Formats: sequence, C-alpha cells, structure tokens
Amino acid sequence: MTARPILILNGPNLNLLGTRQPEIYGATTLADIRVLCEERAAALGLAIDFRQSNHEGELVTWIQEARHGHGAIILNAAAYTHTSVAILDALLACEKPVIEVHLSNIHRREDFRRHSYVSAAAVGMICGFGALGYALALEAVAGQPGVRS
Amino acid sequence: MTARPILILNGPNLNLLGTRQPEIYGATTLADIRVLCEERAAALGLAIDFRQSNHEGELVTWIQEARHGHGAIILNAAAYTHTSVAILDALLACEKPVIEVHLSNIHRREDFRRHSYVSAAAVGMICGFGALGYALALEAVAGQPGVRS
Amino acid sequence: MTARPILILNGPNLNLLGTRQPEIYGATTLADIRVLCEERAAALGLAIDFRQSNHEGELVTWIQEARHGHGAIILNAAAYTHTSVAILDALLACEKPVIEVHLSNIHRREDFRRHSYVSAAAVGMICGFGALGYALALEAVAGQPGVRS
Amino acid sequence: MTARPILILNGPNLNLLGTRQPEIYGATTLADIRVLCEERAAALGLAIDFRQSNHEGELVTWIQEARHGHGAIILNAAAYTHTSVAILDALLACEKPVIEVHLSNIHRREDFRRHSYVSAAAVGMICGFGALGYALALEAVAGQPGVRS
Amino acid sequence: MTARPILILNGPNLNLLGTRQPEIYGATTLADIRVLCEERAAALGLAIDFRQSNHEGELVTWIQEARHGHGAIILNAAAYTHTSVAILDALLACEKPVIEVHLSNIHRREDFRRHSYVSAAAVGMICGFGALGYALALEAVAGQPGVRS
Amino acid sequence: MTARPILILNGPNLNLLGTRQPEIYGATTLADIRVLCEERAAALGLAIDFRQSNHEGELVTWIQEARHGHGAIILNAAAYTHTSVAILDALLACEKPVIEVHLSNIHRREDFRRHSYVSAAAVGMICGFGALGYALALEAVAGQPGVRS
Amino acid sequence: MTARPILILNGPNLNLLGTRQPEIYGATTLADIRVLCEERAAALGLAIDFRQSNHEGELVTWIQEARHGHGAIILNAAAYTHTSVAILDALLACEKPVIEVHLSNIHRREDFRRHSYVSAAAVGMICGFGALGYALALEAVAGQPGVRS
Amino acid sequence: MTARPILILNGPNLNLLGTRQPEIYGATTLADIRVLCEERAAALGLAIDFRQSNHEGELVTWIQEARHGHGAIILNAAAYTHTSVAILDALLACEKPVIEVHLSNIHRREDFRRHSYVSAAAVGMICGFGALGYALALEAVAGQPGVRS
Amino acid sequence: MTARPILILNGPNLNLLGTRQPEIYGATTLADIRVLCEERAAALGLAIDFRQSNHEGELVTWIQEARHGHGAIILNAAAYTHTSVAILDALLACEKPVIEVHLSNIHRREDFRRHSYVSAAAVGMICGFGALGYALALEAVAGQPGVRS
Amino acid sequence: MTARPILILNGPNLNLLGTRQPEIYGATTLADIRVLCEERAAALGLAIDFRQSNHEGELVTWIQEARHGHGAIILNAAAYTHTSVAILDALLACEKPVIEVHLSNIHRREDFRRHSYVSAAAVGMICGFGALGYALALEAVAGQPGVRS
Amino acid sequence: MTARPILILNGPNLNLLGTRQPEIYGATTLADIRVLCEERAAALGLAIDFRQSNHEGELVTWIQEARHGHGAIILNAAAYTHTSVAILDALLACEKPVIEVHLSNIHRREDFRRHSYVSAAAVGMICGFGALGYALALEAVAGQPGVRS
Amino acid sequence: MTARPILILNGPNLNLLGTRQPEIYGATTLADIRVLCEERAAALGLAIDFRQSNHEGELVTWIQEARHGHGAIILNAAAYTHTSVAILDALLACEKPVIEVHLSNIHRREDFRRHSYVSAAAVGMICGFGALGYALALEAVAGQPGVRS
Repeated sequence: MTARPILILNGPNLNLLGTRQPEIYGATTLADIRVLCEERAAALGLAIDFRQSNHEGELVTWIQEARHGHGAIILNAAAYTHTSVAILDALLACEKPVIEVHLSNIHRREDFRRHSYVSAAAVGMICGFGALGYALALEAVAGQPGVRS
Repeated sequence: MTARPILILNGPNLNLLGTRQPEIYGATTLADIRVLCEERAAALGLAIDFRQSNHEGELVTWIQEARHGHGAIILNAAAYTHTSVAILDALLACEKPVIEVHLSNIHRREDFRRHSYVSAAAVGMICGFGALGYALALEAVAGQPGVRS
Repeated sequence: MTARPILILNGPNLNLLGTRQPEIYGATTLADIRVLCEERAAALGLAIDFRQSNHEGELVTWIQEARHGHGAIILNAAAYTHTSVAILDALLACEKPVIEVHLSNIHRREDFRRHSYVSAAAVGMICGFGALGYALALEAVAGQPGVRS
Repeated sequence: MTARPILILNGPNLNLLGTRQPEIYGATTLADIRVLCEERAAALGLAIDFRQSNHEGELVTWIQEARHGHGAIILNAAAYTHTSVAILDALLACEKPVIEVHLSNIHRREDFRRHSYVSAAAVGMICGFGALGYALALEAVAGQPGVRS
Repeated sequence: MTARPILILNGPNLNLLGTRQPEIYGATTLADIRVLCEERAAALGLAIDFRQSNHEGELVTWIQEARHGHGAIILNAAAYTHTSVAILDALLACEKPVIEVHLSNIHRREDFRRHSYVSAAAVGMICGFGALGYALALEAVAGQPGVRS
Repeated sequence: MTARPILILNGPNLNLLGTRQPEIYGATTLADIRVLCEERAAALGLAIDFRQSNHEGELVTWIQEARHGHGAIILNAAAYTHTSVAILDALLACEKPVIEVHLSNIHRREDFRRHSYVSAAAVGMICGFGALGYALALEAVAGQPGVRS
Repeated sequence: MTARPILILNGPNLNLLGTRQPEIYGATTLADIRVLCEERAAALGLAIDFRQSNHEGELVTWIQEARHGHGAIILNAAAYTHTSVAILDALLACEKPVIEVHLSNIHRREDFRRHSYVSAAAVGMICGFGALGYALALEAVAGQPGVRS
Repeated sequence: MTARPILILNGPNLNLLGTRQPEIYGATTLADIRVLCEERAAALGLAIDFRQSNHEGELVTWIQEARHGHGAIILNAAAYTHTSVAILDALLACEKPVIEVHLSNIHRREDFRRHSYVSAAAVGMICGFGALGYALALEAVAGQPGVRS
Repeated sequence: MTARPILILNGPNLNLLGTRQPEIYGATTLADIRVLCEERAAALGLAIDFRQSNHEGELVTWIQEARHGHGAIILNAAAYTHTSVAILDALLACEKPVIEVHLSNIHRREDFRRHSYVSAAAVGMICGFGALGYALALEAVAGQPGVRS
Repeated sequence: MTARPILILNGPNLNLLGTRQPEIYGATTLADIRVLCEERAAALGLAIDFRQSNHEGELVTWIQEARHGHGAIILNAAAYTHTSVAILDALLACEKPVIEVHLSNIHRREDFRRHSYVSAAAVGMICGFGALGYALALEAVAGQPGVRS
Repeated sequence: MTARPILILNGPNLNLLGTRQPEIYGATTLADIRVLCEERAAALGLAIDFRQSNHEGELVTWIQEARHGHGAIILNAAAYTHTSVAILDALLACEKPVIEVHLSNIHRREDFRRHSYVSAAAVGMICGFGALGYALALEAVAGQPGVRS
Repeated sequence: MTARPILILNGPNLNLLGTRQPEIYGATTLADIRVLCEERAAALGLAIDFRQSNHEGELVTWIQEARHGHGAIILNAAAYTHTSVAILDALLACEKPVIEVHLSNIHRREDFRRHSYVSAAAVGMICGFGALGYALALEAVAGQPGVRS
C-alpha cells in the first residue's frame, strides 16, 4: 500500500515570496520551496500536495479534504495563524498529524504574531529557519506514526 | 400574503457534522438538521432557506441578501462567531431579527469561544442543546413581530 | 412511574415583573410566566415546581432539594447569575440537568452581566426571548435523557 | 398631603458600630445615628424609616417595598456595596431617588472597596464624614424633586 | 476559668458532604467531621460550637456573636470564601483568631477559587487535606495566645 | 480669635457653568454658586475665599497658599481630578482638611472620570448633587476639628 | 509618462451604502462616492481604480496586484480594518503609499473598532468626514512622492 | 453676513517645528504652516486665527473663547492630546465643529500616543500627512454645516 | 518494612531564622524547627531528613533524590515558591506526596508572594502558623496513603 | 571657550521643601539645594541655572530654551514626571544630555509614581538620596561628552 | 580547519528523562538523546558537546564559554526557558547561533510555559517532536552560516 | 574603630564586560571597574569587597554574610534584578544600606527589565551612567548614617 501524500498548505501573501523585497527576504520563491519539498519528500519516500491560497475559507476546505486524501498536513498559515479559529476547527476535525511552520521566528516579532491558533491543533512547531523549515517539517512528518504506511 | 422564508446560515466546518468523530459528536449530519428544521418550520407555518459556507465573505453576502428576501435569520456562525466583525456589520445592516444558535454551550469552552460578535446584533442566543437548538430557534423566530405576516 | 417535576427557580427582583415600568418591560407578570410554564409543561407531559426568592441562601437550599425531588432545573438566577459561586456549587452537586434562562440577552448588557457562574453547570442557555424563553427551556428539558421517565 | 418617609438602609456589620473597637471607630452607635437622622429629618420636615440587616436578600426586599411606601432611599450598603448586583437591580427597579452614603472614604481603602454597584443607581454619593454623612444625605434628599410633597 | 468554645463555621453546600457523589468526595459527612472535631478538641482541652449555613447573612451574624461567646473561629466559608466582603468585615470586627480551612487545595482549582476574602482576616490557612484539615486547624487554634485560658 | 476662611477652588471649564447648554446644565452660574456658598458659610459662621482657574499650576500654587491662610479646602478640580498628581502633592503638603466636590456623580460617567487623584488626600467626597454639593461640603467642613476656632 | 492609477479599495458591507437606513447614513451610495472620487482625481490629474469586496482574500489579492499596476492605495477596509492581519501583510508587501479612510470617526465607536491593523502600514489616516474623506485622501495621495510621475 | 474665522490651535513644542532636527522633521516651520493655512483658507473663503501655546490652561481658555468668536476649531494638541481631560471638556463645551490634526501617524508610535482624549469631541481626525494635514482639515471644516454662513 | 524518611526542605534565607530581627521573627531558629520536627515525627512513627539551601538547583536535585529515598516531601521553598518552575517540575516528577508550608500567611503579603508554583504539585498547603506549621505538615503527611508503610 | 551652564529644573511643590513637615522631610530647603549645587558645580568647573515652577507649560518653555543656552539638564520634574508627555517631547527636542533626579526612591512608592515619562529621554536616573542626588547628578553631568567644553 | 563543536545544553530535570513515568514520557533517556545527537552530528560533519545541569548559574557559565569554544548552541532550557533573564543575557552575549528546542509543544501547555526568554536570542524554535527535535535542530544548525567552517 | 568594608556585588554575565562586543559596550572590564571603585573608595576613606557571580544562590549567601562583615552593599544584580525574590529577601534580612546600580538606564529597555525586585530593599538607585555609576554609588554610600564609623 502506498502512503498518502502530505498536504503542504501556504497561507496569504506567501505567493509573493522571492519577488517581494528580495534584498530582505532573499530570492527564494514559493516555487523554489515546492521543489525543495519535493526533493526532501522523495528522499523520505513521501509524496506531497503543495498549495497556496489567500482565502481563509479555501484553506478550511482544503484542510477538510485532508481527512480522506492525505497522510498529514504541514501548515504555514501566515497571517491566518493569528486570527483564524475556522482553520483551527478544521484542523481539529481532520484527525491527521499537523506540523506548524513559519519562515521567521514569530516569537521575536510584533505581539499579535506571537499567538497561534494553529498551535492548539499541531504536533509541533518549527519556526525561524526560512525555507529549510519546510524540509525539517517533512522529516518531522515522516516520524509520525502511520504516515509512512 | 405569504411570510418570507427564514434564512438559516451555518458557518465553517459545520458541513462535517455527523461524519467527523461520530463517537463524540453523534451521527446527526447537517442534512439531518435541515430536515429537522424543515419539519419544525412547517409545523410553525414557516419556510426556510438553509445554507452552509466556509467563507466569511459568502456569509456576509448571504446576510445582505436577507434584507429583501427573508423574514429573519437563524445563524450558527461557528468559528466566525468569535472573529468576524464583517458578519456583525452585515447583521446590523440587514434589519431583520437574528437568532444566534450554537450546538455546544460556548460559555463552557475555551476563553476565545466565550465572546461572540454575533450577539451584539442578535435578539437572543440558544446554545448547548445540539440540533434541538435549531428547532427552538425556529420557535423563537415565530415569536418575533412581523415574521409571520 | 411518573416523571419528577421540573424545578423552575427565579432569582432576586423577578417578583417585580410586570408591575415595574410596564411601558418598558411589558405587562407580563411572574404569575403569567408560571401559567405559561404550566401550560407548556402540560403539553410536554411534565409537571413543574415554580418558585422565586430574593435570598441567595434560599436558592442554594432549593437547588439542593432538587437532588431527590425533581427531574431537572430551569434557572433564571437574575443578579445572582453574575455573583454567586454558592449557587454554582449547589448546581454542580445536584446532578440534575440545568437549563439557564434569561429574559434579556445578557451578552448585550453591562460588562458585569456577561459573565455567568451558572453557565459552568448548565447544559445550555436560552436568553433574549422574554417569557417565551421559559417555554423553550421546558422543551429543551424534555429533550434531556431521563427527564421523561 | 404628607410626604412619604425616607427609607434609611444599613448593610451588614453596621449593627456593631460603636461597640467594636471604640478607640478606632468612636463611640457612636447605629442607634445614635438613628437619633441624629431623626433630628435632622424633623428639621427638614421629613420622616424616616431606619433599618439594618446582614442579609442581602432582606435588603433587596426592603428596597422593593420602597416603590410604594417611601419617598427616597438613603443607602449605606456596607460590604454589599461592592458585591451585590441584586441590590443594584432592586434600586434600578424602585424608581425613587437613591443617595449613597459611606462612613469612610471608600476611595482611600482596599482596591475592592473602590467599586460600588450602588453608584450605578444613585443620584450621588457622600463618603468619609462618619455619622455626619447621614445628615448631609438627608439634606440632599430634601433637595430632590418630589420628595417633599 | 474555662476556655471559651471554638466556633467552627461551615458555609454553603457543605451540608451535602458524604451524600453527594461519594465515589468522588468519599463517604465522610459533615456530621462525621463534627465528631472528628469534638474528639480532637477534647484531646486539646477545647470545646467546640459546630454550625453550617447556606446564608451569607447568617454566617455574618454568627461571626459577630463570636466576639463575646467564643475563643476563636475555624472557618470553611466554601463558596463565600471567594465572594463575601461581608464575611471579611465581620471577621475583621470579631477580634478573635481566625483559622481558614478548605477541604480541597484551592490553589489548584478554577481561577475564581484562588482568591480568598477570608485570608485577609485569618491567622493562617490549611487546605487540601480533607476532613483532617479541621483537626489540624484545631491544633493550630490551640497554639494561639489566649485561646486556652 | 477668628476662624480662617475656607478656600473653595474650582478647576478648568467651571467658569462656563450656566452659560453653556443651559437646557442641560441648568442656569446656575459659578457666580450663583459663590453666592450660595457665601450664604451657607455665613450661616455656619465661616468665611470663604472662592476662586476658579483653568491652569493646573495656578491651582497648585493656590493650594500651597492655604497652608498659612485658610482653614480648609473645598475642591472641585473638574478635569484635573483625573490627571493631576501635582494637585495631589500640593494637597498632601497643605496639611488642611480637604473636601472633594463634584457636580455630577463621577461614578456613573466615562471610565477615566471614575478615578480621582484628589481622593487620596481628601477627608471625603460629595458628588452628584449639583450646586447643593458645595453647601453640603461647607457643612462637612464645619464638622472638621479645628476649622471653627 | 502617465501616472499609474490609484487603487481605491472598499471592504465588506460598503456595497450597502445609501440603501441601508438612509435616514441614518444618508443617501450617498458607493456609486456616488466613486463619481466623487473620479471627479476629484481628474482635478488632481490622477486616474482611479475603484473596487469593493466582501472577501478578505480578494482584498488581499487586489492589494498584491497594486505592486505592479497602481501608484498608491486608498483603503477603507471597513470591518477587516480591525481583524485582518492578512491585509496588513499584503499592504506591507505592496510597497506603495497607503492612505487609510473611514467614513465615521472610529475613535468614538466600540472598543474593538479603535484598533486598526491597516494603520501599521499606512502613511496616514482620515476618518469621520463621510464621503468627503475619500476626496481628502486623494489629495493626500497626490502629495506623496512619486505618485504623480 | 461674514463667516466666523476658524481657530487653528497648536499645542506644546510645535513652536520648535522646522528648527529642531531639520534632517528629520524637515524645514517647514510653524510660520510656514500658518501661511499654508492662510492660503488654503482664502481659497475656501474662510478666515483663520492661528495660535500656539505650551500651556494646557491657555489652550483651554482659547477653546472656550471659540464658543462666541469662531466658526470651528482645528486642533493639533500635540502632547496634550494624550493627557488632557481639561481640553476635552473645553471642546465638549464649545459646541463648534472640531477637527483633530496630527503631523505624524499617531497610530504607529508609542502606545501612549495612540489614545487621544481630543477624539471624543472631534468630528474626525487627519494624521500622518505633515503640514498638508492642516490644509485637508480646512477643507474638511469647509464641509461642516454652518461654517460657511 | 520500615517507612521511608520524610524529606523536609527549606529554601533560601531560612538559615537566618531566629538570628535575624529576633524582636520581629522570634528566637526560633531553623535548628529549633528541626528538633520540633524530629519530636513530632517520632511521635508519628516517622523519620525525617531535614535540609536547607540557598540554591534553586540544589533544591531541584534534592527533590529528584526523593523519588527513590523518601516517603514524602514537606517543602518551604521560601522565595523560590514564587519564581521557580524548575522546582515545580522536579516535584511533578518525584511522584511523592508534597506538603507546602509557609511560616507566614502568604495570602496577606505582597502580590508577588500570593502566587505559588509549588501549589500546582502539592497535596495541600499550611501557612501562617510559624514553626507549628511544620508539625501540622508532618501530621498531614502521616495521613497520606502509603507514607507509613 | 566657556562651558554652558547646567539647567537644573525643579517641578511642582518642590518650592515647599524644608518648610513642609520638617520632622518628616528634614529642614533642607530648595534654597539649600541650590547652594549645594552651586558648590559642587564650582568644584567641577561648571556653572548652573537653578529654577522651579509649578507650571507644566513653563517647564516646557525652559527646556526649549536649553537647546541654545545650556550644556545639559538636571531635571526633578516631581509630579509631572508621571503625567507630562509635553515635558518628554520638550526633552526629546532639546538635544542635550538629561539627568533625572528624585529625592525619594520612586520605585518604592505608589504605583503611579513608578512610571516616568522623563526616563524615555534621560541618560540616567538617580533617586532616593535626597539632596545628595543633585550633587551626584552634577558629577554625572560632568562625565557626559561635550558638557565641559 | 575543523568546525567547532556544537554545544547542546539541557536544563533542569532533563536528567530524569526515560526513568520518570516511562508510560507517559517513553523510555528514551537523556543518554539516548546524546547518542542520537552524536549520530546525526557525525552524518552532518559536526562534533557535539552535550551537557545537562539543574543550576541556572552553571548554564549561564557554559553559555559564556561557547563564545570561544563552540560553533553554535542548541538549548533545551526546560523550566529556565520561562524564568531566566540571566540565560537570555548570556545568549545575547555569546554571539553564536542559538537553536531553541523543546520536547513538548510548549504552546499547548500551561500559560506560564508559553513565554520563552530564550526565544529573544534564538534563530528559531523546534518544539513538540520529542527526541527527534534535537536531530532537526542539528540540521538547522548545519544550515547556519559559518557553522561548518 | 575602622569602618567595615563596602560589599560590591555584581550579578550574572557582568564578568564578560569589556570583552563582549567592545564596539558597543566599550572596553571597560569588570576589573577596570574594581580599580575605579578602589580609587574612589580610598578617596572616601572606605574599603571595598568586590565580587561577581553567575549563581543566584551564591549572591544570596554573600548578601547574608554582609550582615556581620560589611558596612553597606552596592548591588548590580544584572538579570537577577528582575527575577530574584530570593535576593530581595536576603537584602531585607541583611539590615545594611543597599544601593542599586545599573550600567544602562533600565527604564528605557525591554518591559521585563523595568521592574526591579532589588528596589524594594534599596535606599536608592543609580542607573544609566556606565562605570561612573559605581563611583556615584560609593559617594552615596558614604552619605548613609553609620557607614563611616
């Protein structure tokens, strides 16, 4: 039996990565991160399903789909991390391991970025390591029971 | 003259009712609740318009429509109860009686679930009685002036 | 075997209903509500025991009695809703379903009226529907397991 | 037509005045204050009805009676000043002028004594002048419209 | 000269001890605690006066009586611990040593149970040891100056 | 020996009394209050020194002068009540009895008007009785030891 | 070279302007405001791109587009002003001058309307002047460096 | 009949504009702003009365004068914006339209600069546009009913 | 089989007892308390292991040792009561009954002394009885299941 | 070239030093402190300019003057320390070293005295040493770069 | 040139891992984690220096040593994460990359465990993955500039 | 008789002074400060005992020793300033004058550095003057009664 793919979800404004202020955020684009994730997933024997949306409701719907189609969720909810109870409720309902990722160390930013609704439904959090955090999250996913069938 | 239908709105993740963790939440689905509402509405001489959405903006638009097409609103805004000023503003503008419903008793849950933006625009609240709460809300609606023409 | 009566308790100042500022609160008296409850209870096959007190201690004692003599409690604790841990403890000890009722929507009033100690022991809350709320509460009681023997 | 008497209510522990720690609180007893009030009331052409209770519920009931029998209320609610929503609700319902009195200056004591539920229903407050405050309150009552028929 | 008896006061709902949820709270009744106290008091050469009330005002009055009739007070104010300024004021006025007792460790319960108005007037607190706490409190009382004449 | 005059200080904007929104605040001017105070003071055998300023610093200086020239201070600091530590410090230094007066009941207004720095240095407060409050304050002053030589 | 158009964004429920409670909000519709903006922009030598959405995600996407297509943003985010970190992040990324507009003076409304996430990315705010505020915002935009090529 | 002049008030330290840290605040002096205001006012058919003071009390007095002599107030209260209840009370009493102006966007500065007492009495606020904000405020004033007779 | 000794731990500065300000704290030294504990323990058939340290880390290590060598812990953590999560974690790990003791009534002292991290791992607390508290704690220990083998 | 004099500013009520409650504050007057400062300044090769005012606005103006006339500021703002943003803004604009001095240790007084607006613009603070603090401040000033030309 | 070893520090009570409540925390000991780290480090071409202490001061000293002897720090400060400013200051001074690790997801535990002083000095945080988190941290360290010479 | 030496205590991480980021903190080492203190002490006729520790418990023990061996304490507790109740208790017990010193102005740093437990036991505080602060503290010590025998 084949393991289910890992759903990697990216929240609002992450579609701008690499093209926005590259002198600050670097030249890594979201497409680059997708490639990075595909390579690391392959090395771990995992498949991925990589998406981005600016819509809270679309993210909720995608998380609901993971209940039947995916093995785990890696979630960088970006701004919705701090404001979306709807995403939290979807995560609580999806009954799959959830790994929370952030490019920056959210504990060192504005006060409103220090609280995460996602955390209440996540196995763990990785933050502050930029694109590398996604690769670490995939390794963490691989260590969850039942992910690699 | 015929009374206008009652708009019954359901917020994010309520589409999962009955299929998610049935050992916990029971086997009642949202479709079951719709049937329950239709039956009680019929007994009260009311028609209903029953919808669900994961999108805050779509709920806002539907509430706006109620200004001309519906007699009252029964709203279980789920997670958006606690975070959506946009839904509150739409309710304030729609100028129809609003009844707030929750399946669980939100006063006994996490702190962030105890505050409701919806309440500021609602005639009243019914919470903690599961699907039965919708039926009680319909009876409450029937008691509002002008609902039954 | 006959079902035990439902204890309907009314807290301080509710004895003034209907006679106080009738242009604001309407002409419905607490006696009227008792009649309304008796009618709805009869329709549901239930008996009721309807009381009012201005004394926190007396309400505590009555709730204690419900442990052996009643099937459930419908409680409009009025002002004690917001200040009485003693009533909360009595409710926690009485091991009967408790339905919380308020005439007004307490979520839209002064800050100190938004917190309810009663809620921590209640199956659910119905508020904002005036006297009708008592009838809805009776129907909610009827839906609790074990109330209608 | 004769003016209705002024109800002067004293809350818990005020019955101990003058006998408790006289080196601190002085030798003035509550009976002395009653005499002082009677004298000042007579000078103002008013009658008084002077009571004390340790029971919150009894104070609530007495305030309710003032709706029909008295012209105004002077209230030193003592400890219940800070904790009783029930007394506040009774005052709001009684529709008579209420003057709040305290022997000490409550703004200079513990934090929990600085908030008064009574104030939300009172014309004004007099505090910090000991027994003299009752006399001043009577003069303030005499200045309210409708008190001296 | 004989020592004055120790007033042991029990607040609201403690009359239910032992009969309520015995699988949780055990089978020890308040009557059992009274016997336990009598035995320990006898061993210490003390007499006791053991009472319970659900009424805040009655507890206030009993504490006032202790000014002349008792040597010290052991007080388990139960729910009133957290809400009663009136009991605090009575304790401050009674000028006798006060020992605060709680069956459970109130520091490990809900937030609103962690604050005690009683403490501001108490020599010390004993909590978390069930009925044994009363016996320890009696020994603590025996160690107060002037209690054993 | 003659008693020293009572310094009656009025803070910012009180010079507008009676001419501002008379349909709301009435037609009583600050000059009227001065006359009222003079009459009541005469009846009590007291002289007064009645002033108004919009300047915090000027009020501070006037309070300092009271150390040597006046018998007591009646202070309606108006807006500075809530913001001026400088006035508080001047009052603490002047070593004369201070009576705090407010025309309205400040406990029923905006949150920022409920805190008074003046109270920390005042014998007592009278608020909510309009101009009559000044007369009551004079009677309260007359009751302070040492004011009437 | 021609200046890029100014993106004027309107958030949720602003599509109801003028038709909702006209006795309160007046008869000015969002279409009227668009005309007003076009006229003022023409007078300033600016073009505008005027949009409205009830969807947070759509507003985010539109703001992202402004990075390449527009010269500045005038934003009345309505309810999302107070809840949307996603819009804030989009504004921070768009690297164009942002002017915040509100029809009402948000500093005088409910507490939750006093905080604006938009402000953290805005040059300035104009609020309280109704439709005129849009015209003032256009003049403010015209004063930003680089807007009028 | 000629329109009354607009009172433009500037609070503490604004007299230093243009000479203080010009590399930061620019070279625009308060005299420059006065000229800018005179020009814009002339274009709008308005006269102005432009003043600056470091004294809270003087600002209060000037605002009081506006009751009879001016058509509206444009107020940059600078530091007193955040601390002066006295200025708020003067504004509430002056019964003229008040426009609040700030050179910087106060919502992006230290916490204590985010709260404005002035706002509670102002039609609206304009902030963040430097000297241009005064011109916009004049246009906003011109749009107030009754300003241009 | 012999019961394991009771570990009695004393935190920072308790080594100064009796020698510091004896006119305030009395002449009882920590050595005296050790003797008192030995006597009471002997009467209860218990052995004790009595220690003091100023080092948080040393207290942590000693608590860890209790997992294998002692039957229960009596802990007066002194200042570390209020600041040490490390001691709390050690107590949670040691899986022995913990009794918290304080010489003074910490509920009547500075705010920062009212919170105890120790309480979250303790069976109960005894405070306010000076050295006698240690003896009462030993009796409480003796009542714990499994302490006296 | 001669060093510019040091401006030593004293806030409200400091003019009363030495004459107010000498048994508490000692007999040192502000004139004595001026002499002490002159002597210490002379020893350090500095000149001083010593002033006192009860007016916030006057202190603001004096601080503004220091931009051109003085080498540094030693400021004991007394009560205005805790309430004056205007003084803070003047200090930020004056671009001279500022040393904050307090006679008492403000960290051990009422809560409202623990926050200093002055600190945000000061090199450092010296408090708790009475008049000696001024001398220490002069030595601290002498250590600032550029003060002694 | 050889890369400097990575300092892996473990805070209080981590020495108990694996032996404490193995049914809950699993059987992995700190020695097992050291082996895991050594293996992963070898695979990454890194050396490690693995230590544990219950003493805050010792952890501070070890972090200071890392300034000259180590290439980076992986820190699981356990309880000191939440209370130690001293460790934060040492980290800020050591000028090496710091990776924060926690076995559990601290965002889902008691409130006091949600704040980390360590975060203010850390590149990023990894939490919730048990022992695997150390391996991920090593990979994150390997990605820091300058760590692998 | 010779005066007792002054104990000068330095807390965690101060041993790094001068070697850490010298471009920021300057090249002054703790050894330099010791020399500075010795010179100033000699000039004042005082001897010093200069120590540094990273261990809270060691600092507590040293402070305890000062009770018998030293004349006063100058304490720069560094990070423990903000977290150590144990050091506060030791200071309260040592009954010697305590002068608090900080190199930086702690009132301008992170929020958690603005509160000092040390202040509650200190005569006064000197902060913001770097190494010079120690010299000023010695002069302040010299001014304390009884230090120079």
